Amino acid sequence: MTSSCLAIILAAGEGTRMRSSLPKVLHPVAGRAMIDHVVDAAKAGGADKVAVVIGSGAETVRSHLGKSHGDALLFEQTERLGTAHAVLAAKNALVEADGSVLVLFGDNPLIRPGTIAAMLQALAAGNDLVVLGFEPENPTGYGRLVSENGKLVRIVEEKDADAPTRAVRLCNAGIMGFKGAHLPALLERIGNANAKKEYYLTDAVEIAVKAGLSTTVVLGDAIEVQGVNDRVQLAKAEADFQAARRLAAMREGATLIAPETVFFSHDTKLGRDVTVEPNVVFGPGVTVADGVSIRAFSHLEAAHVASGAIIGPYARLRPGADIGENAHIGNFVEIKNADIAEGAKVNHLTYIGDASVGAGSNIGAGTITCNYDGTFKHRTTIGAGVFVGSHTTLVAPVSVGDGGYTAAGSVVTKDVPAEALAFGRAHQINKPGRAAKIRADLAAKKAAKTSP
Amino acid sequence: MTSSCLAIILAAGEGTRMRSSLPKVLHPVAGRAMIDHVVDAAKAGGADKVAVVIGSGAETVRSHLGKSHGDALLFEQTERLGTAHAVLAAKNALVEADGSVLVLFGDNPLIRPGTIAAMLQALAAGNDLVVLGFEPENPTGYGRLVSENGKLVRIVEEKDADAPTRAVRLCNAGIMGFKGAHLPALLERIGNANAKKEYYLTDAVEIAVKAGLSTTVVLGDAIEVQGVNDRVQLAKAEADFQAARRLAAMREGATLIAPETVFFSHDTKLGRDVTVEPNVVFGPGVTVADGVSIRAFSHLEAAHVASGAIIGPYARLRPGADIGENAHIGNFVEIKNADIAEGAKVNHLTYIGDASVGAGSNIGAGTITCNYDGTFKHRTTIGAGVFVGSHTTLVAPVSVGDGGYTAAGSVVTKDVPAEALAFGRAHQINKPGRAAKIRADLAAKKAAKTSP
Amino acid sequence: MTSSCLAIILAAGEGTRMRSSLPKVLHPVAGRAMIDHVVDAAKAGGADKVAVVIGSGAETVRSHLGKSHGDALLFEQTERLGTAHAVLAAKNALVEADGSVLVLFGDNPLIRPGTIAAMLQALAAGNDLVVLGFEPENPTGYGRLVSENGKLVRIVEEKDADAPTRAVRLCNAGIMGFKGAHLPALLERIGNANAKKEYYLTDAVEIAVKAGLSTTVVLGDAIEVQGVNDRVQLAKAEADFQAARRLAAMREGATLIAPETVFFSHDTKLGRDVTVEPNVVFGPGVTVADGVSIRAFSHLEAAHVASGAIIGPYARLRPGADIGENAHIGNFVEIKNADIAEGAKVNHLTYIGDASVGAGSNIGAGTITCNYDGTFKHRTTIGAGVFVGSHTTLVAPVSVGDGGYTAAGSVVTKDVPAEALAFGRAHQINKPGRAAKIRADLAAKKAAKTSP
Repeated sequence: MTSSCLAIILAAGEGTRMRSSLPKVLHPVAGRAMIDHVVDAAKAGGADKVAVVIGSGAETVRSHLGKSHGDALLFEQTERLGTAHAVLAAKNALVEADGSVLVLFGDNPLIRPGTIAAMLQALAAGNDLVVLGFEPENPTGYGRLVSENGKLVRIVEEKDADAPTRAVRLCNAGIMGFKGAHLPALLERIGNANAKKEYYLTDAVEIAVKAGLSTTVVLGDAIEVQGVNDRVQLAKAEADFQAARRLAAMREGATLIAPETVFFSHDTKLGRDVTVEPNVVFGPGVTVADGVSIRAFSHLEAAHVASGAIIGPYARLRPGADIGENAHIGNFVEIKNADIAEGAKVNHLTYIGDASVGAGSNIGAGTITCNYDGTFKHRTTIGAGVFVGSHTTLVAPVSVGDGGYTAAGSVVTKDVPAEALAFGRAHQINKPGRAAKIRADLAAKKAAKTSP
Repeated sequence: MTSSCLAIILAAGEGTRMRSSLPKVLHPVAGRAMIDHVVDAAKAGGADKVAVVIGSGAETVRSHLGKSHGDALLFEQTERLGTAHAVLAAKNALVEADGSVLVLFGDNPLIRPGTIAAMLQALAAGNDLVVLGFEPENPTGYGRLVSENGKLVRIVEEKDADAPTRAVRLCNAGIMGFKGAHLPALLERIGNANAKKEYYLTDAVEIAVKAGLSTTVVLGDAIEVQGVNDRVQLAKAEADFQAARRLAAMREGATLIAPETVFFSHDTKLGRDVTVEPNVVFGPGVTVADGVSIRAFSHLEAAHVASGAIIGPYARLRPGADIGENAHIGNFVEIKNADIAEGAKVNHLTYIGDASVGAGSNIGAGTITCNYDGTFKHRTTIGAGVFVGSHTTLVAPVSVGDGGYTAAGSVVTKDVPAEALAFGRAHQINKPGRAAKIRADLAAKKAAKTSP
Repeated sequence: MTSSCLAIILAAGEGTRMRSSLPKVLHPVAGRAMIDHVVDAAKAGGADKVAVVIGSGAETVRSHLGKSHGDALLFEQTERLGTAHAVLAAKNALVEADGSVLVLFGDNPLIRPGTIAAMLQALAAGNDLVVLGFEPENPTGYGRLVSENGKLVRIVEEKDADAPTRAVRLCNAGIMGFKGAHLPALLERIGNANAKKEYYLTDAVEIAVKAGLSTTVVLGDAIEVQGVNDRVQLAKAEADFQAARRLAAMREGATLIAPETVFFSHDTKLGRDVTVEPNVVFGPGVTVADGVSIRAFSHLEAAHVASGAIIGPYARLRPGADIGENAHIGNFVEIKNADIAEGAKVNHLTYIGDASVGAGSNIGAGTITCNYDGTFKHRTTIGAGVFVGSHTTLVAPVSVGDGGYTAAGSVVTKDVPAEALAFGRAHQINKPGRAAKIRADLAAKKAAKTSP
């Protein structure tokens, strides 16, 4: 791509049917806002500049994009008078557009970079205008793309279509591309002489044809062009994303025992010979190396798992969990912002937060790192080859040196030197017959309560 | 509806194909017995009196309905000689029926109130007999509803149907309605001259037509008329209920990331902008306010969640859990019969039962309320702004006053005054080199064991 | 079956498309390696001797089969020159085959014993060669089984098929059976005059027909004949297994509320009136008696659950868990190698490993058995009618006698006699105003940190 390419993403619509106080384009698919999916795809497909036209919930969208895509140009469309009007809102970006201009939609989260690249290629190959078409199973309701002699000549809405036009299976996805030099003139000539008094970008096709410009169609598929207007469609887009992602994971060499129960994030990375049992949820930011086993009912977010580790069942890895090679994280265990080194085991009912656990250490069942004092977070540092006894309470900041040992049930508040044993629990006293007495007392109380 | 309406629900069948010791109509769909769904629908559709004909497992069904629908009239059918015979078992209810009589089935759990109302309306509009019809995808095996000149004239069983009758797509759902005044005479004229020697209510149609009565059909859909005769059909009814409920939740403004993994109860109530992550189970009696996030792998029963709260992942709310605004209930946490006030946090590996937690309090990881002494349950009362240290054991009855603090690993058996610190744990002693010695001893023992 | 039957299972293929370092036939379906499913089916269907031809990953497969099917004869095919060549690798087994020889595939994990028995019966009935056929929904791509006068005459590959042959719906599943006496001569006459220069067993059909032998077809179904060549097909085989197993469970009298979320192992056994809530995973070796309730999010492996018990939600039963009648295992509870006797309750956040719990005992929330000292595992023995207080740490080897009682928060290191109370915790001290001081100090520190 030698000339520049601007992608204008329309994201100003109200999204009333979402019934949400969150602007529509910020609703996530696979853990990432729809608008971010579209910006990502535009960039990956070849756009070197991205403009987003915002409107409904503008401040919220502006703030969101400021973090996720700070380089996007934002333009606010204060009135909503149709797609051509929305594009005009970005006219200050257009002026600079000596190359190609693509118009995308913020609620098309599954649009593929390859499709965007194909549209840019169609423009680079000499076409002045390109429309993305698709062939839905049932075309009823969609605008048809009518071609003559291999050239797109117009887009006809369902309600205006005669029988032969209705028989056309190629439908309009709404996404269009233009040689930038022609776009201002085309936009200028689009009128609003229609029922809704709106300016429709699709009208550019007939205007272009009349002006002798060259028009064409690029074919997309029904999944990538689907728009999201309500939460049922949002769930559909999510399901389509997941189905494709699961297939890809299996083809790349992961076993998903029940693929339909595994939920990926947009950026999940799995190695080869990873096994994922049923019912696993990957939040954003997870990478899993080769040969890892992710057992049932596990939940991972912003975590790294090194090769050969076993995670779960019922393991929760929170942001900053970094699990070493061949380490084991077991059931009802939460790991947050903590490094668990090679071969370490944290197998039962444990919370490890803001901590490091050295190689080969064994953390007993029911261990808790007390990392929070109500105001600050503190770190727990556990060396290599440490044996933390069951039900140990580690009050951070605290450390246990290499080869250290804590007695079961201890509260550890002071550092434990290497090779030392920390003991912090009361001695046991047996009171003979006392259990029998307690039971007798309780039984008497119960009898007293239930008697009249 | 000015005249009275009696719904007779036939629930006497054996349900042999369920292979269960529980009577068929007590098997639940969406957490509620099938018979209760039908009684609910009858009442919501306009029945002002409900009679249930019981038989198989009569005592169990009687006891169940005594609790769920104490106003239902119960009639026992001791022999099972067909649907007309079953209706006759309720003849003492019929005598009072000067209005309409509907005959429903206890194993049709998804019958809709609107359909029942439409049948009553058909009777109110002057018809003497109304049959519920439906159009299955494949009508093979169903009785066909044969009409002439817009009036229902007879019901023909598949095996008795000629080719034109088999081409009829409208099938008999079994559910019927009658002007009460005509019903006794119709029932009296139904014979049992058939292979099974049973009295079939469907025979009433031809008798009514011959008697010059006015007959008609109301159209239902295939989902609501499905009967449940075995556990595969039970699972199908459950799946259809869930599919409809999920759609409704999304349309009302909740995001279900993976709707197929969310299981609702018959009475679940969700607010707007609620997000439900994958794998969430709602038992009966749950209400969730606006803006709540229910994270993956959560399980809620008879609980209330106020707006803005975050539940899970892996949170279990049991009956009586009342979660305040913006409170957080985290992973591997069980809450039972407890109020968690606004902004409080119970985030890790904790059991809070028979308790109250004040606004803004923070409950450390691994906290346990000991609410049970083997005989009685006792309450734990935690004030506002309290910091309960990790691994605290609260032995109820006990209280921690506002602003109180418990040291990590403490066993709290006495009330903690406001602003006080409770300390109940042993002091730590480090024994230098002792861990190394323990390891050496164990290694020696192991060597001794494995040597010949 | 009076004469002997040898099943030769071809398991030498590379399985490159699995993209795995594990040999293809060792990938599991329903918790059991594919090759083991096929060996099991061969034996159950009537094979009295099984030979497996191994090749790719031979040592790993040999070691695996040594454990799972030590009686299988193993033959290594060092070069892969086609199915006939693979069968020849087992020629030392053939010599003894005076009866029938079946050729099966190690990557057909769902082949049914009944189908194998039917093939053997076809041979016993006088046929010399039998081919397993099936009728896929879309036969494109499969070899067609062409019959004349009711006898199979040849197998025609898709690419060699003329239009009438393409219209044949009966396809070749690859699985064949032979009268053992004829097989050596047939194999000898199979050539490799084809594009890949391989020896194809299917060529035996035409050779047999020319030799005047009697040939026939047995019909299988598309599910059992599916081969697994990549992980997508592996997931498909797993899904088909699960679908069939769920149906069977429901037909036998278990309620699966959401069957699509329940995952069985190859050997799971469920009693009557068992209820399985959504999201339950059964690993290998689980038996569940009548009337048990397995609640949501439970995970069971190599465990037995006696009648009337309630498991979960969120219960994990690990190998050796033996749960008694009417016992309750609750949320976030892990049981491993432990007997929980009749009526005992382990309801919350507990780990019981290498232990026994007597009848009617109650284990408080947050109880941990410390069964591991870093080198050895030790047992905890809890008698009948014991009350273990919440947050008890039981340091094994240790016992609590019948009727014993442990105070909440105790660390129990010495045996507790029957009827005695063990007390092993610090006394509580309240420090008035100290919480307020801690908070003030922290606030001051925070202010100092955030001031410039």
